Amino acid sequence: MLIVKKFGGTSVANKERIFNVARRCIEDYKAGHDVVVVLSAMGDTTDELIELANSINPDAKKRELDMLLTTGEQVSVSLMAMAMQALDVPAVSLNAFQVAMHATSRYGNARFKRVDTKRIRHELDSRKIVIVTGFQGVNKYDDITTLGRGGSDTTAVALAAVLHADKCEIYTDVDGVFTADPRIVKNAKKLDFITYDEMLELASLGAKVLHNRSVEMAKKYNVELVVRSSLNQTEGTVVGEGTGMEKLLVTGVAADKNTARISVIGVEDKPGTAFSVFDTLAANNINVDIILQSVGREGTKDISFTVASDDLEHALEVLDKNKERLTIKDITYNKDVAKLSVVGAGMMSNPGVASRMFEALYNSRVNINMISTSEIRITVLVAEKDIDKAMNAVHDEFIMEE
Amino acid sequence: MLIVKKFGGTSVANKERIFNVARRCIEDYKAGHDVVVVLSAMGDTTDELIELANSINPDAKKRELDMLLTTGEQVSVSLMAMAMQALDVPAVSLNAFQVAMHATSRYGNARFKRVDTKRIRHELDSRKIVIVTGFQGVNKYDDITTLGRGGSDTTAVALAAVLHADKCEIYTDVDGVFTADPRIVKNAKKLDFITYDEMLELASLGAKVLHNRSVEMAKKYNVELVVRSSLNQTEGTVVGEGTGMEKLLVTGVAADKNTARISVIGVEDKPGTAFSVFDTLAANNINVDIILQSVGREGTKDISFTVASDDLEHALEVLDKNKERLTIKDITYNKDVAKLSVVGAGMMSNPGVASRMFEALYNSRVNINMISTSEIRITVLVAEKDIDKAMNAVHDEFIMEE
Repeated sequence: MLIVKKFGGTSVANKERIFNVARRCIEDYKAGHDVVVVLSAMGDTTDELIELANSINPDAKKRELDMLLTTGEQVSVSLMAMAMQALDVPAVSLNAFQVAMHATSRYGNARFKRVDTKRIRHELDSRKIVIVTGFQGVNKYDDITTLGRGGSDTTAVALAAVLHADKCEIYTDVDGVFTADPRIVKNAKKLDFITYDEMLELASLGAKVLHNRSVEMAKKYNVELVVRSSLNQTEGTVVGEGTGMEKLLVTGVAADKNTARISVIGVEDKPGTAFSVFDTLAANNINVDIILQSVGREGTKDISFTVASDDLEHALEVLDKNKERLTIKDITYNKDVAKLSVVGAGMMSNPGVASRMFEALYNSRVNINMISTSEIRITVLVAEKDIDKAMNAVHDEFIMEE
Repeated sequence: MLIVKKFGGTSVANKERIFNVARRCIEDYKAGHDVVVVLSAMGDTTDELIELANSINPDAKKRELDMLLTTGEQVSVSLMAMAMQALDVPAVSLNAFQVAMHATSRYGNARFKRVDTKRIRHELDSRKIVIVTGFQGVNKYDDITTLGRGGSDTTAVALAAVLHADKCEIYTDVDGVFTADPRIVKNAKKLDFITYDEMLELASLGAKVLHNRSVEMAKKYNVELVVRSSLNQTEGTVVGEGTGMEKLLVTGVAADKNTARISVIGVEDKPGTAFSVFDTLAANNINVDIILQSVGREGTKDISFTVASDDLEHALEVLDKNKERLTIKDITYNKDVAKLSVVGAGMMSNPGVASRMFEALYNSRVNINMISTSEIRITVLVAEKDIDKAMNAVHDEFIMEE
């Protein structure tokens, strides 16, 4: 069996943890499996390097930032190889260039184009554990690019895909994927299984268990993922292609407080005005989420939408600068809002979910500001102060029922 | 003009120093020159990484150690590029793989085989300052190797050679090459010029100003070096091919306390026994320096020689294990010795240097244990407690005279 195992920065934060991970990998190796390990930078290394870079040049070119940050994973993988060697197991560390993990040139946010297997196969064939730097690739100029935050998950999935791995295990500091954040929802339960699509909705909604692009890639190449804890032997959660039987009505409930609402008031009610507003925002790299349009007075309309809190200031600037062209009379906004989402592949065939959700919120006296839905997701915008109460209410309505 | 400038770890140890170096390079750039900068790892980074590695595995494979250590220079070069960008000068950092600095596979002690110029030329042609990681190369397996301590000097010379640089400046924390260590010899003077051969003798004798192999390479490819301070604008010392006029009788006086004497007593006096002793030591990677053979009693001989202090224990073990085969009756040693050397290209044509040296030492009541000479060097072994006094005496005899 060929197993790809990915460990995040907290799992390799110090000597003891490095040896824990080493022993965990060696178990599989000694059972006769081929083992490929993907590592992130130790502990807070990446943040510390970013701070160091900022102290020298807050507007440093992303190419140089990638050159700097990728040293973090190179440190992790070499130390891990040393740890395994100390335990008398042959191991070799490889960076993105040595593996030949070809990526696009978009520094800080690159994507894999082609990943070679020759070097890794060669090392596996000589019965070594192969330890690969996560988070990084090499572009056509031989320059080093990074995949963005959480990119090590994507590295693991990419390697699992090209190596046709039997397993791709993503180790983290929680036991798996939960029906909701256990720190907020006391009844949250660990899931044994979740579909790619559900996981994608949850990841993009701020569940933060897996890097979104890693799930997309896993789905595309049909790589079955296991999310599990590096701290214990609990089985974890399988992320895979859903079959009929496994489709829960609601798999998970997620909250996202990194949200702000903006309303543009009194926009001329003619074709194309809404488009112009969102086109202008998109041209400034501002992503818009839930959108609500309502008819205003005297042939105008009001448009409300949400953006990430981090983008709020920028979005307001952009809108203000283009106020006249976009025929906006007034702009209002609210930072104290949060998104609450329920996700479940079973929703597709069960139309009643939305009304049950709204009723649960009504019974908890949580007011709904805006609503947005996909085939397997319902998202509502509520006041930020209500979000914990709302999560518990909706979670208990769906998850505890089943 | 194409200028290669190398800065050591202390010159880039913190933000302020990084900007100092950046500004120094930018001066040359703004004067219209092409500038290539070679950097070591910041401050004590390399030592810290070695300590980290030792805490995990004191017997780590050198391949993994090189993988770890080379991150140090990658951090320096990326931060330097950011600093130059902050000063509005286009700059790009390159590691050994990106330049294509091909080296041998001897991890921890590799040598350059071939250095490509294409990428550097391309970046220089687009008017960027090019910042290259010192100390490292890439072998034929795409693995990263290091050149050993002080290897960044060699990187700078190698680049100066292949790029046909007009200047290769080695920046350090002293003003240049001195006639002796100014901390010990109060009359020590900075030299304006020193020949490659003199520098080689001085470097190998522990003057520690330049990496020995960088001087060998500079001589081979006729790269004129300038050793100068990164802290001030003093002119520094030129290291080049000597011409008749420049040949001083004695250029420098150097001491090396990292020395121990070993004597093997009562070895059979037949052909090949001395060879066997030194062959056995060489097979165990122990370098032997000054050798003295004397006739012992009853058809035996005694052989004395010096080794580096760090090698003493190992050498004694090796000799003891092979005592019988090597017909050694007894082994004695002394750690409290030091080497004192005078170096000067002018010695070749001036036979009186040795006797003047011995007389100066005699007048200072310093006893000579062993003597070794080359065409341009005389080395004596003295008691370690006498070395400072001996240095001053010899220095004043030759250098102050001129």
